[in-house]
Amino acid sequence: MQGEGLLRVTGDDGERTDAARNRRLLLDAAAEIVATCGAERLTTDAVARRAGVGKGTVFRRFGSRAGLMHALADEAGREFQQAFMSGPPPLGPGAPPLERLIAFGEASIARMRLDGQILRATEQQGGPDLEHPTQRLVRLHLAILLRGIGASDPEVGAYHLAAVLNAGLLLHLQDDRGMSVERLTASWAALVSALAA
Amino acid sequence: MQGEGLLRVTGDDGERTDAARNRRLLLDAAAEIVATCGAERLTTDAVARRAGVGKGTVFRRFGSRAGLMHALADEAGREFQQAFMSGPPPLGPGAPPLERLIAFGEASIARMRLDGQILRATEQQGGPDLEHPTQRLVRLHLAILLRGIGASDPEVGAYHLAAVLNAGLLLHLQDDRGMSVERLTASWAALVSALAA
Repeated sequence: MQGEGLLRVTGDDGERTDAARNRRLLLDAAAEIVATCGAERLTTDAVARRAGVGKGTVFRRFGSRAGLMHALADEAGREFQQAFMSGPPPLGPGAPPLERLIAFGEASIARMRLDGQILRATEQQGGPDLEHPTQRLVRLHLAILLRGIGASDPEVGAYHLAAVLNAGLLLHLQDDRGMSVERLTASWAALVSALAA
Repeated sequence: MQGEGLLRVTGDDGERTDAARNRRLLLDAAAEIVATCGAERLTTDAVARRAGVGKGTVFRRFGSRAGLMHALADEAGREFQQAFMSGPPPLGPGAPPLERLIAFGEASIARMRLDGQILRATEQQGGPDLEHPTQRLVRLHLAILLRGIGASDPEVGAYHLAAVLNAGLLLHLQDDRGMSVERLTASWAALVSALAA
């Protein structure tokens, strides 16, 4: 999950490699804090302590707690993107569009356990940002699959499906309403299956 | 729209009648400002000026700009509630559940023109509040209709449909993406029709 693939280390530049390693170290520390104690415990202080660096290093790298949150969310988003754009089927290419749609929802729901708190923390600054590149990519992906199953108006449909998979909503249903991953996945599957022509 | 039905005036209490009249005057002034100049122009100053009262009166009544916004949103929500709970069919009782579902989306989309800016302004303080009494009532209504059309898991389905009718999303599609009310209504109708067993 936090493997080499995410490190864009050039190799021929010692300083840049150090910077990348440092960034990795801080992001790993931050991800551990969120996973162990919850997103509300993520502070630049806590990250510095856990990573064994000065608080100034964290600030220089990420600016603020919000900057750190966004870096975590971007990283989580990138891994997920990779999985649905070029990973193995049925989430990635190679499966029929309905199967891919079902897998997309299933993966979105499942990743809430790991990434949900980070996503919700970044979303809460005014709801989901519909113009964010990640959101656009998700909608483009959903629209293509909706077209593939013969749904009417795939462009609007993609907005609908993205709203249904909103992190704040999924976390509310799981954490506050106690709904199981299985139940949410089944509802999603029923929804997208109903949209198939 | 802003008729007697909303005034809970007791009649036998002069002071309370005055307070209600005052409240009505201020809310009307606020609604006019939003309709004419947009929600971002709504300030307690502007409302006081338009209603011809002192700024202190607005503050005493609503506390702040946010309080005023919420009062406007609550009022708009109450009128809409009345329409779908006890108004004429197909939005109100008396029509088959699928027709009522279609009418509910149509009315939600249409009212964005009037109430959208207020709803978005109150929603933006952290996305829609899923526990707000209005949201709960909307979901209860949607769940009953979903059960009526034989949809699987009406409880989760109600969350899905409420997310699709989120004011921030509907306004984004209409104002920023230039989608017509007709197009959005057609997509909604296709969605709920697909859910019918």
